[in-house]
Amino acid sequence: MAGPTFGKMAVIGCGLIGSSVIRAARASGAVGAVAVADASESARKLIVELGYADSVHADPAEAVKDADLVVLCVPVMAMGEAAAAAAPGLKPGAIVTDVGSVKGAPAEALAAAVPQSCFVVPGHPIAGTEQSGPDAGFAELFQNRWVILTPQARTDAPYLEAVDRLTEFWTRLGSNVELMDVAHHDLVLAVTSHLPHLIAYTIVGAAADLEGVTRGEVMKYSAGGFRDFTRIAASDPTMWRDVFLANKDAVLEILGRFTEDLQAMSRAIRWGEGDKLHEHFSRTRDIRRGIIAAGQESAEPNFGRDHRQP
Amino acid sequence: MAGPTFGKMAVIGCGLIGSSVIRAARASGAVGAVAVADASESARKLIVELGYADSVHADPAEAVKDADLVVLCVPVMAMGEAAAAAAPGLKPGAIVTDVGSVKGAPAEALAAAVPQSCFVVPGHPIAGTEQSGPDAGFAELFQNRWVILTPQARTDAPYLEAVDRLTEFWTRLGSNVELMDVAHHDLVLAVTSHLPHLIAYTIVGAAADLEGVTRGEVMKYSAGGFRDFTRIAASDPTMWRDVFLANKDAVLEILGRFTEDLQAMSRAIRWGEGDKLHEHFSRTRDIRRGIIAAGQESAEPNFGRDHRQP
Repeated sequence: MAGPTFGKMAVIGCGLIGSSVIRAARASGAVGAVAVADASESARKLIVELGYADSVHADPAEAVKDADLVVLCVPVMAMGEAAAAAAPGLKPGAIVTDVGSVKGAPAEALAAAVPQSCFVVPGHPIAGTEQSGPDAGFAELFQNRWVILTPQARTDAPYLEAVDRLTEFWTRLGSNVELMDVAHHDLVLAVTSHLPHLIAYTIVGAAADLEGVTRGEVMKYSAGGFRDFTRIAASDPTMWRDVFLANKDAVLEILGRFTEDLQAMSRAIRWGEGDKLHEHFSRTRDIRRGIIAAGQESAEPNFGRDHRQP
Repeated sequence: MAGPTFGKMAVIGCGLIGSSVIRAARASGAVGAVAVADASESARKLIVELGYADSVHADPAEAVKDADLVVLCVPVMAMGEAAAAAAPGLKPGAIVTDVGSVKGAPAEALAAAVPQSCFVVPGHPIAGTEQSGPDAGFAELFQNRWVILTPQARTDAPYLEAVDRLTEFWTRLGSNVELMDVAHHDLVLAVTSHLPHLIAYTIVGAAADLEGVTRGEVMKYSAGGFRDFTRIAASDPTMWRDVFLANKDAVLEILGRFTEDLQAMSRAIRWGEGDKLHEHFSRTRDIRRGIIAAGQESAEPNFGRDHRQP
């Protein structure tokens, strides 16, 4: 087995993704030592109990000391602040990355907070479950998942080498790595992730508020489609609040298109336009077939599985 | 093992649900002989090959001859026509039920088409996958699922006995049976099933039409939430067209509430109202917890699994 890609990794913020990064990095041998910083005292206690980190800190600057790789796993609106808190401890030449679902403003905040002597390479693993917390992570979360990196507009050799090393890291964790432009990332994710979450949160909320249908009934008969939405709508509220605030423009743009289409559907139902509905419903099947053909669907979907570690 | 609840069952329309009813009824010993009618020649050929029926017919009236139980498994807008086609062959005292996702107009059409000498007990198993066709069914589809029956407003003993026998039938197939008023059924299902499908169809269609993001990208990065929608949006187009046409009023009512809430969300994002978003996202988690607590969620969800029989 090859030696570790990074001698020491520091993870700032240890929820579902942070704890999964640690477990996966350890399992693959991609890192040597692991330090963790988390702002929550109860989280730190739990991390110590779980025993997957070599050291656990309240202060990010202490955790990142001597680290070759720093992975920020905090909600996207907290990215700048977390990076600034870590900055005094950063070693020159350290690679600083994140796992945020939005890359525009958070990546800028990251770049602004980190010293020029370090290499900032923003990243985003497209993987998750609806669970959260330091005990929610598992080593297999990133296997056969995509990780998008959005490198800065630099072409100097040391920076390109940093991008290569981070690519190697994620590859060892089982992921496929893709490089992408920041704005394009935020648009693609607005479609494939942010709008689906917003809609799931909305429909589950609307169902809970109905008079005439009890919550008990909504739960009892959820197997007809609703249940899939409840899984998504159970995702971490702080993380998702930040996603919508940080990716406002792309989300509102995509939401506008969705709403137009929904109004057209509503009109077709009201006027009994069966052919129009049938045509639309047939078209969407092709997309699903494309996903299956591309091998992006496994028999047991990664998203939504309840993977709590014992 | 107890003898069959029904000596002969006839299934009219043999897609995912029809073929699952047959497989489940056979596996549980709930029926003796099984006759099938399907309007499609290629479906009939496939049913003969699969060998799970004792006789296969083009004419529903032939299939229902001597049947004690007739299960109509056709799209809801075709219910009246299918029942009328079967009517000349129905034996007095036969129990006629269906599996339609809407119970208002289709149940009326059923009652109007079936002779007074038979017992009409409309039904709806809350179970399915996105697959369709005579080869999509499997015996376990109804296990631990709810079946809602919407009996007519009759209190005569023979009718009540018919309801009891149909309840026994579904119970033997592994389901939990609930009796419900027709209008309430259609409202509950509009929330828990019809609106989720409409929204999934719409978001998948909207994503396919975007310039700037390719279909390939939408598929590739679908693990972030979108993929769950594509599964629902791959459901049978004819069945779902009929659901929306037949349950127009309840669907439009629920859709109106959803749209209002979505506009409020959109406004909160535009104005950066993080607290409002966070509060909403926290509330929806409770619903999910209720579903898990109620045991309505299994580790491997029934809906969405690819259960093709060999």
